[in-house]
Amino acid sequence: MAQRLKASIVGVTGYTGLEILRMLVAHPQVDIAYLTSRQNPDTPIGELYPHLAHLKLKVTDTDVETVAKKSDVVFLALPHKTAQDTVAALHGKTKIIDMSADFRLDDVATYEKYYATPHAYPELLKEAVYGAPEFYKEKIKKAQIVANPGCFALLAQLMLYPYAGLIESVDIMAVTGSSGSGKSPTEGTHHPVRSHNMKSYNINIHRHIPEIIRTAQIETKQLNFVPTSGPFTRGIFATAFIRTTSMPTKCSTEIYKDAPFVRICKEVALANVVGSNFCDIVYTMVDENHFIAQGVLDNLVKGAAGCAVQNMNLMFGLEETLGLSVLTPVYP
Amino acid sequence: MAQRLKASIVGVTGYTGLEILRMLVAHPQVDIAYLTSRQNPDTPIGELYPHLAHLKLKVTDTDVETVAKKSDVVFLALPHKTAQDTVAALHGKTKIIDMSADFRLDDVATYEKYYATPHAYPELLKEAVYGAPEFYKEKIKKAQIVANPGCFALLAQLMLYPYAGLIESVDIMAVTGSSGSGKSPTEGTHHPVRSHNMKSYNINIHRHIPEIIRTAQIETKQLNFVPTSGPFTRGIFATAFIRTTSMPTKCSTEIYKDAPFVRICKEVALANVVGSNFCDIVYTMVDENHFIAQGVLDNLVKGAAGCAVQNMNLMFGLEETLGLSVLTPVYP
Amino acid sequence: MAQRLKASIVGVTGYTGLEILRMLVAHPQVDIAYLTSRQNPDTPIGELYPHLAHLKLKVTDTDVETVAKKSDVVFLALPHKTAQDTVAALHGKTKIIDMSADFRLDDVATYEKYYATPHAYPELLKEAVYGAPEFYKEKIKKAQIVANPGCFALLAQLMLYPYAGLIESVDIMAVTGSSGSGKSPTEGTHHPVRSHNMKSYNINIHRHIPEIIRTAQIETKQLNFVPTSGPFTRGIFATAFIRTTSMPTKCSTEIYKDAPFVRICKEVALANVVGSNFCDIVYTMVDENHFIAQGVLDNLVKGAAGCAVQNMNLMFGLEETLGLSVLTPVYP
Amino acid sequence: MAQRLKASIVGVTGYTGLEILRMLVAHPQVDIAYLTSRQNPDTPIGELYPHLAHLKLKVTDTDVETVAKKSDVVFLALPHKTAQDTVAALHGKTKIIDMSADFRLDDVATYEKYYATPHAYPELLKEAVYGAPEFYKEKIKKAQIVANPGCFALLAQLMLYPYAGLIESVDIMAVTGSSGSGKSPTEGTHHPVRSHNMKSYNINIHRHIPEIIRTAQIETKQLNFVPTSGPFTRGIFATAFIRTTSMPTKCSTEIYKDAPFVRICKEVALANVVGSNFCDIVYTMVDENHFIAQGVLDNLVKGAAGCAVQNMNLMFGLEETLGLSVLTPVYP
Repeated sequence: MAQRLKASIVGVTGYTGLEILRMLVAHPQVDIAYLTSRQNPDTPIGELYPHLAHLKLKVTDTDVETVAKKSDVVFLALPHKTAQDTVAALHGKTKIIDMSADFRLDDVATYEKYYATPHAYPELLKEAVYGAPEFYKEKIKKAQIVANPGCFALLAQLMLYPYAGLIESVDIMAVTGSSGSGKSPTEGTHHPVRSHNMKSYNINIHRHIPEIIRTAQIETKQLNFVPTSGPFTRGIFATAFIRTTSMPTKCSTEIYKDAPFVRICKEVALANVVGSNFCDIVYTMVDENHFIAQGVLDNLVKGAAGCAVQNMNLMFGLEETLGLSVLTPVYP
Repeated sequence: MAQRLKASIVGVTGYTGLEILRMLVAHPQVDIAYLTSRQNPDTPIGELYPHLAHLKLKVTDTDVETVAKKSDVVFLALPHKTAQDTVAALHGKTKIIDMSADFRLDDVATYEKYYATPHAYPELLKEAVYGAPEFYKEKIKKAQIVANPGCFALLAQLMLYPYAGLIESVDIMAVTGSSGSGKSPTEGTHHPVRSHNMKSYNINIHRHIPEIIRTAQIETKQLNFVPTSGPFTRGIFATAFIRTTSMPTKCSTEIYKDAPFVRICKEVALANVVGSNFCDIVYTMVDENHFIAQGVLDNLVKGAAGCAVQNMNLMFGLEETLGLSVLTPVYP
Repeated sequence: MAQRLKASIVGVTGYTGLEILRMLVAHPQVDIAYLTSRQNPDTPIGELYPHLAHLKLKVTDTDVETVAKKSDVVFLALPHKTAQDTVAALHGKTKIIDMSADFRLDDVATYEKYYATPHAYPELLKEAVYGAPEFYKEKIKKAQIVANPGCFALLAQLMLYPYAGLIESVDIMAVTGSSGSGKSPTEGTHHPVRSHNMKSYNINIHRHIPEIIRTAQIETKQLNFVPTSGPFTRGIFATAFIRTTSMPTKCSTEIYKDAPFVRICKEVALANVVGSNFCDIVYTMVDENHFIAQGVLDNLVKGAAGCAVQNMNLMFGLEETLGLSVLTPVYP
Repeated sequence: MAQRLKASIVGVTGYTGLEILRMLVAHPQVDIAYLTSRQNPDTPIGELYPHLAHLKLKVTDTDVETVAKKSDVVFLALPHKTAQDTVAALHGKTKIIDMSADFRLDDVATYEKYYATPHAYPELLKEAVYGAPEFYKEKIKKAQIVANPGCFALLAQLMLYPYAGLIESVDIMAVTGSSGSGKSPTEGTHHPVRSHNMKSYNINIHRHIPEIIRTAQIETKQLNFVPTSGPFTRGIFATAFIRTTSMPTKCSTEIYKDAPFVRICKEVALANVVGSNFCDIVYTMVDENHFIAQGVLDNLVKGAAGCAVQNMNLMFGLEETLGLSVLTPVYP
């Protein structure tokens, strides 16, 4: 049996941090080193989150250098911009899986345009590996810094990749659950309305666009992206209308044959992936230059924490599915 | 045809204010005079609330004296304490229907205990009439100030009244929708959790308790009241376990025979009243001293705006059901 | 004041029939003549549907000829095929508003292809008027038979009409609430899964397609239509990606200036129309040949019963909005 | 490392069967022997349930004798009455965990009264052990047949047990999610209404009552039990008003100190247990003879499949929490 990993979560009290913790508790090779949060020094996690009352774990305000010393891997669940400085502080001291957007884009100008903030560490950008295991497995295995993909972005990339290089245009309508908005209440997540509402936002300006177009090998103007909030808690349901210059030569089941969490299906349903690390995709050919792709994933799992743990497994030479294959979709 | 009424809503932008407006739009004898809000001077209501984009109405920050001059009746949808001063300012100048708690209790000490704020107008308290049309119809007809009941409180009173004077003890478990928390997002109304949660709060200290015990003719210690938040938008579903000293002598259908919005049923279901002014109640006898009552109403309609319009009808000699009977429950 | 109308609903016990009844109760010029249902002879409607317990109305199994004699207008809320015979039986004896699909398509072959059943009354097809008031107001005014549009179909038509004749291709993703599936429980409406699910069905073969393409002036192959079930009760939220040969010359607000229930908005949200007869639409130009349209309506109101009552108003020379403008969206 | 168990699920295609499978997939010491279903001979489970498409498991119609031969333990997820015969057929050939009600009650007459069917195996009734690990741990360890408790019943027992022998009367109002109704669509689980409804059923005649009163040491007439359906998928939220003859002498944390899945809390919330095997309980003292208990559990986990796996662990000398402690509540 391989040596056990010591893992820490910096910023554990947000939904992404909590979900990483849920994954790590299910992981047979991981021990928790630190759970940190600026706001909650030295509090049993069960006091902050009673659903975790059984865990004998404390949230602390430990400085990241100390965290790094005792950790084989640190998951950063921090807002963008804050994450930058923390990655820089940890760099070289431990392996890092950054859940923020700060190291997802390899181009500083694009980052600064979409996130409206300077990027202080362009040299680290070059070193960071984009954490989509389906596309960059070998790089991830050797990475010191992994930038975990955006939830919409990973789903769209998995859907579009079989057409990469052939796409003339693509129109995506993607509906997300409310957990994607994080733990802070806002007008958009106010239950009296959200419970039976649908509403689009950030049409064609959403921050996940540069991640998508890079993998799809298209320019911004070839993509319409309509993110939409839906009346459910977990998951994204995306529909893409794809026009291509020619038929893809390789079929999707072949492309994803080594991707244990991508299931190519006859039809997809959001409820089939909730709670699990699966991404289900169905492709329908309209005609030889025209396709409809539909995909679903749990935004907090495959769209965040599950993908991060999958990356961790790769970074440490563990079985890619370890600790994740036990998480069967919670159905119904 | 009677002369048309000019009605204003002070504090229109909260859920109660909006719902009064929905009722008044359906009322055949009412014209809107003013819709006011401190926060939104001089804005078309459709800009604040796009679901009202078709209404050619403006929200203004008009002072209440001006409002009073042009209004036969003013609905005050303000927070408690603020409402006090406004009622005092309007008193004698127009008829007032106050949606706040400020004039519901006839006892200053009780008010100050439950609302933790002084009552500056004890003399107005004496003049205000408690706006439960099922119990105080004649007084409401002559009232200048009507204090509209709390949503939990009205439901519980309607359920318990047939046992008033006979109650040894009563235990109530009441589940409310998220619209009862108002339009401001809070942790308790955050959709990711609220969508599938139930949680009790303010057990035995809820502010509606003094309204309930007065009508039920009991003391606080004879009541357990467990308010609970539920994963739906509109409505309250209440279950009361009632122990009595003897059988009631009058049956509930008889007691409510002149109450057009109370329906004594064989069973109740929340979905049967949503959007309407109905309160459905079922009584089950366990044994001759022991009863189970269950009741439902839409907290924003019979529990607030609908009851207010019913009071308005009474205050102006209109048919009690006018403008309300057209609001069939929205089913499904 | 105009003479009051006597209206009947044949097949009142389905969701469409119930919703027509809700509308008619709110209508100031209508009296109910008959409510019929094969399954429930001679039952107070409140026994079948306790939310209607206050109505002193009976459901009967009256034959349609008798219904016709006492009715100025009959709403048929029957399954397709059954509706055909009933329309034929009633024709010439009363005005008919048919909620089924049987008289929506002017082409027998298309009907028979999509509905897999013969059409026995091709001559009546020619006489029936398609009940989209926004496009056929004058014809509806004179019609004896109005075929009320499909819910998806009307929404798509309202969204696409400003581009009619200019459309190269259009891709529609439309999410519908569970009430669209009717009152009979099925696997697709089973709450444990539906409550947090999204799933597409009948992609590019949905029966509303021929209604859509006729108005949009396109052929089937120019349209992709992805109907999708969503986890809410009422409403449809549709997104259309439209490619055109040129810019439309007339703007949508101009096109719909006489359509009292079409609101051209800056953004649309499902919750803004629930319970009401409004259809909200927003148009976004991507470039001069490429547009995104988004639209919402309540499938049971503007998508069925509300549109039917709007048609009734037109057929009898009443104000188009009569009885409908009092139905403000139920928000939240 | 202990030898691995071979487990089978008879009747895998219902919600309980599926949930046992979810638990077993997460269990480090279990291999699946057979998954059986009468309706679906020889079908990959992923065809029946696409959320399980990744599992290389077949559903077969294997006879139970063959199942028994290859299984250390068989979970029976069958309807009551059918379960009886299957338990009899398997008895002595393998260990059995029966999810039905057939062996929960030790008294034939009570069984026959509540389930309206004869009990054909009274001698097996005596042998079966009631599978509430918190009360019968030692017996379960030695049992050949374990009768897994009803979901409402286990929750109520866990709430009431600290008062057993002292209870004068208890009134319970318990709200359950729709998954408790099973996988077959019915009127009560029809999404258009269930999504925002609450409704009680089987008041004081629910079949779980005899399980509850046995543990609480009361007679039927001392209990009011109001089961209620709520608008969510998973979980039960129960409130009990308890009157006692005296104060309990032992505190609940002491009573449950060896119960790893019972968490005595300061307050309970349904969302805190969903997906997990926890039962959270809070006790509030009103006065020395009067208490309010509130409890929550996931009806499919602690209320069914999770409790069953906990029983399996005990029956085979495994750590009680094995395979269950990795299932952190799915929050949010």
